[in-house]
Amino acid sequence: MVQDNKFKVGILGASGYTGADLVRLLVAHPNVKIELMTAERKAGRPIADIFPHFHGFDLPDLISIDDIEWPAVELDVVFCALPHATSQQVIKGLMHATNHSLLDELIMETPADLAAQVPGNVRVIDLSADFRLRDVEIYAEWYGRRHTATELQKSAVYGLSEWNRDAINDAHLVACPGCYPTAALLALLPLLKAGKVLSDDIIIDAKSGVSGAGRSLKEANLYVEVAEAMHPYGLGSHRHMPEIEQELSLASGSDVTISFTPHLVPMNRGELETIYVKLADGETAASLKAALEEAYAAEPFVSVLPGDTAPATRMVRGSNHCVLNVFSDRQPGRAIVVAAIDNLVKGSSGQAVQNMNLMLGLDETTGLMQAPLFP
Amino acid sequence: MVQDNKFKVGILGASGYTGADLVRLLVAHPNVKIELMTAERKAGRPIADIFPHFHGFDLPDLISIDDIEWPAVELDVVFCALPHATSQQVIKGLMHATNHSLLDELIMETPADLAAQVPGNVRVIDLSADFRLRDVEIYAEWYGRRHTATELQKSAVYGLSEWNRDAINDAHLVACPGCYPTAALLALLPLLKAGKVLSDDIIIDAKSGVSGAGRSLKEANLYVEVAEAMHPYGLGSHRHMPEIEQELSLASGSDVTISFTPHLVPMNRGELETIYVKLADGETAASLKAALEEAYAAEPFVSVLPGDTAPATRMVRGSNHCVLNVFSDRQPGRAIVVAAIDNLVKGSSGQAVQNMNLMLGLDETTGLMQAPLFP
Amino acid sequence: MVQDNKFKVGILGASGYTGADLVRLLVAHPNVKIELMTAERKAGRPIADIFPHFHGFDLPDLISIDDIEWPAVELDVVFCALPHATSQQVIKGLMHATNHSLLDELIMETPADLAAQVPGNVRVIDLSADFRLRDVEIYAEWYGRRHTATELQKSAVYGLSEWNRDAINDAHLVACPGCYPTAALLALLPLLKAGKVLSDDIIIDAKSGVSGAGRSLKEANLYVEVAEAMHPYGLGSHRHMPEIEQELSLASGSDVTISFTPHLVPMNRGELETIYVKLADGETAASLKAALEEAYAAEPFVSVLPGDTAPATRMVRGSNHCVLNVFSDRQPGRAIVVAAIDNLVKGSSGQAVQNMNLMLGLDETTGLMQAPLFP
Amino acid sequence: MVQDNKFKVGILGASGYTGADLVRLLVAHPNVKIELMTAERKAGRPIADIFPHFHGFDLPDLISIDDIEWPAVELDVVFCALPHATSQQVIKGLMHATNHSLLDELIMETPADLAAQVPGNVRVIDLSADFRLRDVEIYAEWYGRRHTATELQKSAVYGLSEWNRDAINDAHLVACPGCYPTAALLALLPLLKAGKVLSDDIIIDAKSGVSGAGRSLKEANLYVEVAEAMHPYGLGSHRHMPEIEQELSLASGSDVTISFTPHLVPMNRGELETIYVKLADGETAASLKAALEEAYAAEPFVSVLPGDTAPATRMVRGSNHCVLNVFSDRQPGRAIVVAAIDNLVKGSSGQAVQNMNLMLGLDETTGLMQAPLFP
Repeated sequence: MVQDNKFKVGILGASGYTGADLVRLLVAHPNVKIELMTAERKAGRPIADIFPHFHGFDLPDLISIDDIEWPAVELDVVFCALPHATSQQVIKGLMHATNHSLLDELIMETPADLAAQVPGNVRVIDLSADFRLRDVEIYAEWYGRRHTATELQKSAVYGLSEWNRDAINDAHLVACPGCYPTAALLALLPLLKAGKVLSDDIIIDAKSGVSGAGRSLKEANLYVEVAEAMHPYGLGSHRHMPEIEQELSLASGSDVTISFTPHLVPMNRGELETIYVKLADGETAASLKAALEEAYAAEPFVSVLPGDTAPATRMVRGSNHCVLNVFSDRQPGRAIVVAAIDNLVKGSSGQAVQNMNLMLGLDETTGLMQAPLFP
Repeated sequence: MVQDNKFKVGILGASGYTGADLVRLLVAHPNVKIELMTAERKAGRPIADIFPHFHGFDLPDLISIDDIEWPAVELDVVFCALPHATSQQVIKGLMHATNHSLLDELIMETPADLAAQVPGNVRVIDLSADFRLRDVEIYAEWYGRRHTATELQKSAVYGLSEWNRDAINDAHLVACPGCYPTAALLALLPLLKAGKVLSDDIIIDAKSGVSGAGRSLKEANLYVEVAEAMHPYGLGSHRHMPEIEQELSLASGSDVTISFTPHLVPMNRGELETIYVKLADGETAASLKAALEEAYAAEPFVSVLPGDTAPATRMVRGSNHCVLNVFSDRQPGRAIVVAAIDNLVKGSSGQAVQNMNLMLGLDETTGLMQAPLFP
Repeated sequence: MVQDNKFKVGILGASGYTGADLVRLLVAHPNVKIELMTAERKAGRPIADIFPHFHGFDLPDLISIDDIEWPAVELDVVFCALPHATSQQVIKGLMHATNHSLLDELIMETPADLAAQVPGNVRVIDLSADFRLRDVEIYAEWYGRRHTATELQKSAVYGLSEWNRDAINDAHLVACPGCYPTAALLALLPLLKAGKVLSDDIIIDAKSGVSGAGRSLKEANLYVEVAEAMHPYGLGSHRHMPEIEQELSLASGSDVTISFTPHLVPMNRGELETIYVKLADGETAASLKAALEEAYAAEPFVSVLPGDTAPATRMVRGSNHCVLNVFSDRQPGRAIVVAAIDNLVKGSSGQAVQNMNLMLGLDETTGLMQAPLFP
Repeated sequence: MVQDNKFKVGILGASGYTGADLVRLLVAHPNVKIELMTAERKAGRPIADIFPHFHGFDLPDLISIDDIEWPAVELDVVFCALPHATSQQVIKGLMHATNHSLLDELIMETPADLAAQVPGNVRVIDLSADFRLRDVEIYAEWYGRRHTATELQKSAVYGLSEWNRDAINDAHLVACPGCYPTAALLALLPLLKAGKVLSDDIIIDAKSGVSGAGRSLKEANLYVEVAEAMHPYGLGSHRHMPEIEQELSLASGSDVTISFTPHLVPMNRGELETIYVKLADGETAASLKAALEEAYAAEPFVSVLPGDTAPATRMVRGSNHCVLNVFSDRQPGRAIVVAAIDNLVKGSSGQAVQNMNLMLGLDETTGLMQAPLFP
């Protein structure tokens, strides 16, 4: 399973921005080798055709999922950066191989005998939304279709590295959090767990760079539509809401309903969340900050900024860090918590690599300690 | 007062972005002529030296305020786009000419006999913060100095055109609102006046383009610091807060304390406010929207968007319009009101011209009906 | 022909960026009324659905070309902002109505009896490339298909307003120049006509904002691909080359072959051309500049900048102006001519309106004297 | 001199963008430790105050150059990212300590006995322009002052890594090339050395991101002035011209005079050069490309792109790579060579680290093989 002292990894769905950032991080990771990358419509082409910034790097050509010779490649880790719905079907086939009739329906036309050939000890790290929600009814409500791998969903571990480390260590299937939930949960979990903020009046005003919308061809993502402009979207309907609520409810022990409004900002990367919370009795912005500092004192990727330094996306561009701070609100009884991450790194591919490090028993920071790219 | 059928206007402080947008609008206004423009450090130079996009336009050279020959120029309207503190001193001199000892202290070294020469019927439209706050103690608290023209402050009319039209008609001194207050008040005044939202839990998450920070040389405003990035600033301390609170308190009849957090966004122009409100009993997002539609049905510059169209800054780039909409919040008992303006137009120079039209008895929309510039 | 004292205009193809800028300019034009706008895939919808910045403006809903009732509408002017190839077919049908078998082939499925219904005195202003090239063989070579309206091509007038004014006055079909040719020709025509530069070593390095690529869904036009980046494209193969060469050859009386390299720059609007020329005997950068100043002394939309001020796209954002300047080159015998325009205005829709003014006998600057939008 | 198996490096002038990128690269370099960083006006503060993206990294506080205890620190390498003129004085003091009267004049007030304390074997890597020009008269002409360390200038090695590798290996003072010269020389040196292009008609049209202008407070570098716009600057007068000419003249054996025009583009990083050349007899674009491929076949940081792929700045964002390609020109006898680099990496700090690797006998690619950051 280890060849040349390196773990073998595959990336399913390498032609999107998430896939590209996985490649960026893994190609420089000292303990892994990218053994294969898939992209259905671009199969057969070098990845530098799709992402020319990889020209000059020693990477395998893109192939179709169908053409993976699972027994031969002996992957240790599979990153799944496929669209939701597709993801659950591919992973189901890959991991269980018990329900051939379902596999026949796979969108990607994965051969029915695929799963039978897959070694049982592969770790799967899913970057789609398919295994994040524990309640299949909520999944059906928000994603418009029934889950077809419900048995896997139960065993999937929610991959918020800092808070589920032990479970991730032993997991075979990790569901990486969405980008908005990552920032929101890192900011709120310590506060809700300690009862420092009320659980019933949490307002999250989120702002994201455009890479979060993916590489799909939508008019709304054209340069001219986005540049020199901003606007909210998905008001009251964004799919990251139930995911945030699920984890906040678990942390607080009560049903949490949040207000969450994302905005599109003219930048490639970066995500900022300005979170308005009500203080529990006796709490202050300072006591909240102290709680965050305590929670993350030993964390390599989460920092509480000194003084009144405001988190800014430029502090984490290209890096796996999350920066946090807490501010007094002019309204009595309120405070403002601000979190910034790079949506593609800590919000997606970086956290996936962090989880891989945990699952493989490597130092959690391996391959992830690059300084942010500023300017 | 009218020469060639045109009113004569002067712009004090024409070398900033606000001044530039005043020039842009006034140079195309059919009923006015720009008679003079001042800029202390650039006095003697053509404005095209400072703003090369005015090359080819027939505009007077920049002069010093000291060099204005007030009796000779016979201005009908003076726009004051000077920094706060300076503004009150210049306007005081210009309008009252009663307190020569104060005039001697003028930062701009306006001659002590300046005011004596000014005709009494000039209308002054101030774009600084100096005459927005009615309470001199609050002014002193937030601007760090005592007001030196308190008698004028009392007579100044708050220039939110849609809500103070009658008073503006008759005013000799209009204090144009700040950009953030303009959007916030247009969104909230109809709701608070009608008691449709609670006055004690208003949260304004505001986002602004960089021109709002002016043309001053600060590291934070350099391209490299701003591009591809965003961050909040002035948390709990922005000077537009007391201004918004003053007007909301007047409208609701009770002391309103808001939560207000501005963010810097990488765009030249544009301002978006996402406002989280609590519904009064029996109200819904739809009833709030109906109230806004009713309030602004006849307004040429304020629109409530149809359906669930989200206000976006690109809808108002370069235009004097404000677009509004209301959305259901996932949290019961809440709604989200969104407003977008161009910070330099409706948030500053455009509203100033709108007020000038009112003061001069012109059609309010004169010179302001350009379509937005998109792309 | 004139109703309510206004000429009636129609815009065929109003859903692209060129169409949007036509609407922006025409909706504020004092002498015309937009009578109809077409967009095949968006027919039946308000234009504010497609371009929300037009919300609040009094504009007709989009219709299909097929649904135009030509005799009833009595248009004075038709702007054709359709793709090339489609454009020639629609215009042919519209103007000649003599070849019904050809009309049957129309991509847009224009009814065969369309043209018969069209009044003969409509002026057509085409913004596509279909009628720019005089030589049908060159058209076939560069556009990959034979021209199907060759008889019209001969009668079309090349709409570079400053240089073909007399012919445009009388034309029924004007072919507006491409954006790159507009800037290049305004810079070079006076110099070539006067023999001040050699015709055989002209190098044009051009840079354009992204709106020039249109609103079509191509990966290369996504925000993330364009922002924070730049690159050349169409090296040696851009279709504006033969157009520039045609006009330069006419001006110089010899066959001109240029070197032309366009680049994509992360901005919505704006076009800059840095043109490297060889001086004729006895000429200098100063003599070239003098020639430009003389050529454009009376032109309202073309300016030669003073001193060594470098043309910049921000000087002409949203405006119909072209700014020029000439610089000494460090290489003896060479000079550098720089031109900046807004690709959507002087490079497309603005020049089209300028031509309309000429064709209708209006003042050439009507509706086009807005100051540029800076910031 | 080696502690914990790591070389000790110091960065003089760490508060600019070049300094920041040095820190970014060196903090992740496995063989060096940043021992000290200086910044005169920010002395005493943590670097995270100045560059908040370094929050969380283990870095020394900023100090004044005066406060360096040279004998104690035992630096192996000093990077000098100071302004020109200052740089030569500090380096002179640091390396020679022979002319105390000159040292007394040092702008930075370096103590006169500074140099005497410096160990002789420190390697100095200068990122300023002070040691790039071999001819002191040309230096005086272009930099407006006489060189004050002429004896050092003679011994300085021009640090274009790929072309001066042997000399850099043994150097004690390396003058890193300017960003524009780096791209131009990598593109042109193989062609001129092999006589494949003429030396007397080279035209370089260069485009750069804004970080190249540094972090100094100039109106021209404000976000609002730069965003959504572009323009040429320094026409005929940019200081990188004599530097490019010096190296091209050396390569070709004749005096080369170039045409060079830089442009400012709204992006943080990235530099593109479109170079127009005349072919020597019998040469073609293909033969030029073959020459580049041969010259750089074994180079880790210089790639010739396949087919007609155009170099783009997004291919090298944050990386030390240079991508090149050659295109046929429509003008007979011409070709177009295009080069893209990141101005802060291969154009400055990255090449400096590459040179450090050479000087220290490390693998040349150590710490420099990060994949570019795209998106």
